Amino acid sequence: MASLMKSFVDVSPGSQFPIQNLPYGVFRPSAGASPRPGVAIGDSVVDLSVLSEAGLFKGPLLSSSSCFSQTSLNAFMALGRPAWKEARKTLQKLLSDGEPTLRDDHVLRSKAILPMNQVTMVMPAVIGDYTDFFSSKEHAVNCGTIFRGGKEDALPPNWVHVPIGYHGRASSVVISGTDIRRPRGQTSPPPGENAPEFKPSALLDFELEMAAFVGPGNELGKPVSVDEAADHIFGFVIMNDWSARDIQKWEYVPLGPFLGKSFGTTISPWIVTMEALDPFICDAPEQDPPALQYLTEKNRFTYDIPMQVAIRPKGESKASVISNTNFKYLYWTVCQQLAHHTVNGCNLNTGDLLASGTISGPVCMI
Amino acid sequence: MASLMKSFVDVSPGSQFPIQNLPYGVFRPSAGASPRPGVAIGDSVVDLSVLSEAGLFKGPLLSSSSCFSQTSLNAFMALGRPAWKEARKTLQKLLSDGEPTLRDDHVLRSKAILPMNQVTMVMPAVIGDYTDFFSSKEHAVNCGTIFRGGKEDALPPNWVHVPIGYHGRASSVVISGTDIRRPRGQTSPPPGENAPEFKPSALLDFELEMAAFVGPGNELGKPVSVDEAADHIFGFVIMNDWSARDIQKWEYVPLGPFLGKSFGTTISPWIVTMEALDPFICDAPEQDPPALQYLTEKNRFTYDIPMQVAIRPKGESKASVISNTNFKYLYWTVCQQLAHHTVNGCNLNTGDLLASGTISGPVCMI
Repeated sequence: MASLMKSFVDVSPGSQFPIQNLPYGVFRPSAGASPRPGVAIGDSVVDLSVLSEAGLFKGPLLSSSSCFSQTSLNAFMALGRPAWKEARKTLQKLLSDGEPTLRDDHVLRSKAILPMNQVTMVMPAVIGDYTDFFSSKEHAVNCGTIFRGGKEDALPPNWVHVPIGYHGRASSVVISGTDIRRPRGQTSPPPGENAPEFKPSALLDFELEMAAFVGPGNELGKPVSVDEAADHIFGFVIMNDWSARDIQKWEYVPLGPFLGKSFGTTISPWIVTMEALDPFICDAPEQDPPALQYLTEKNRFTYDIPMQVAIRPKGESKASVISNTNFKYLYWTVCQQLAHHTVNGCNLNTGDLLASGTISGPVCMI
Repeated sequence: MASLMKSFVDVSPGSQFPIQNLPYGVFRPSAGASPRPGVAIGDSVVDLSVLSEAGLFKGPLLSSSSCFSQTSLNAFMALGRPAWKEARKTLQKLLSDGEPTLRDDHVLRSKAILPMNQVTMVMPAVIGDYTDFFSSKEHAVNCGTIFRGGKEDALPPNWVHVPIGYHGRASSVVISGTDIRRPRGQTSPPPGENAPEFKPSALLDFELEMAAFVGPGNELGKPVSVDEAADHIFGFVIMNDWSARDIQKWEYVPLGPFLGKSFGTTISPWIVTMEALDPFICDAPEQDPPALQYLTEKNRFTYDIPMQVAIRPKGESKASVISNTNFKYLYWTVCQQLAHHTVNGCNLNTGDLLASGTISGPVCMI
């Protein structure tokens, strides 16, 4: 049973990174060293460029591939699910407690397995386009109430038919730990005034999301069907879609969010693969009214991923939990999002990021 | 006088590509050959990789640069205005009728100067992010009337203060001549129905725009002031922002255009530089109310560029002119757009595309 598999690498109980996970990221082993792909296990990082140079990826798809000698995961992500499965199988074998190849080769092991706190994580992929969806019904109702006033018509009439999304800013997607500067911008005229104000945002907010990295893309003019969509998804990161609500409120009519969100979007440096998430597959919410045919899944599923937000204000020693939610509540699945995104012929590229939209309602940090 | 400068390369009277223009593009000299940068002159293309390998860029900034051996213009665009001026000076000298270096070296000349109809143009740059602005007052009023109904409140109250823009889809930007497939998508429920339709768009439209390529970018968190903005702009292309109005109308509330525009955006393969446009500098429209301080230009200017749209339906031998307009009518200048885009700290990268928005009102091809 996979759940009993153990690694010779120390993994403390409760670690997010047991041998069953093995998320992918990109890191520098030391300052000035070139970035290379790695997987996380326990409090360690496995340098895939070292394993690849040592000839340890012996499967048919990876033995002669240079994808682990790149400075991003794009080349690996472009290879598709069979290569991802091959890599996972190889890595789980190499890292398992019964396998001597790496465990007992102390020179190779010390080169390939590094303490996570000694490496520097960088962006895992070159993101071409970043799309943010709006797939939580509760969040859509909350936003409607905040931005358009009144709970009655808070949910736009298209919402139950269209997996609403918009193009986000790819350049300002950064990994956890990167400083985000409070944005300045225009905000609505104060009561009784005509001219807007220009000031640092006074309504900086966060949004808890998950985001999927696209693996193989599709050609312009060739939609991906909803039942093929899963094969185009490499894995997920957690995302904080920083939002300046006062800037957003003044600018967003008629063309949507722009500077209220483009000053920074934070993702986790580790991408959890679809394979690692398999044990957490569960039913997705029933849809009423039924989705249009191109969005109707033969096998409708989502993932049971509990999520939590805690905030620790500067100077405080303790973080306060302010939100508990679950990815499984999202009304539109990632397969529906991807099929919708391409149904008009829009092409996705490897490394594109599809964010879920806020999972449950926003909590303003006013 | 620059206007009297002539080239030994044939340039027919009325050509868009005299020696005073020299727009940049990327081309393959033959099928299978690697793409390389070029400039257009008359009906010819000058292969910059050949000139560079021959050591003809002797200036301090370009003599040891590999920017003309790349498959895109990004490396050259990243160098900034001094390098662009150096390249222009070198090329105008090499191509002028009185200069023997290239003119009289028949071997080099036949390698470096190719008939335009024998080469294949490709995308001139790798576009990171593409932003579409909404800077024509007439277009904003027209859109308000089409999508929100009624001319009274057609112009949103923020429009005269905010250079409104939104993130467009970078992956589907293609060059002139690339086939665009009519998109399928959801459209509003027919009268008396609740469910939307799903069908090929019946309201395919175009939008005539200009778009600026970003040269040197800016760091996340470091805005570019409006008076420094021009140094970040390499040059302009013409753009057709294909739009499916029926898809757009149903999807665009509340987060803006998405699938109604992401199925294809066409740009010209040649980028006209700011240096080439210098003789066409003119006053920009006066702004009332005055722009906020961060958008107030010490030296406010735009470009006098007449633009025309003609359509030739399939089977017709003649094209009909359906629109005449001018870039100079845009209310917000490209410097104001760039300053606004970065004022919240958003980072621009070399190769990012900033489109003007439709210049004057849309004409629907219903």
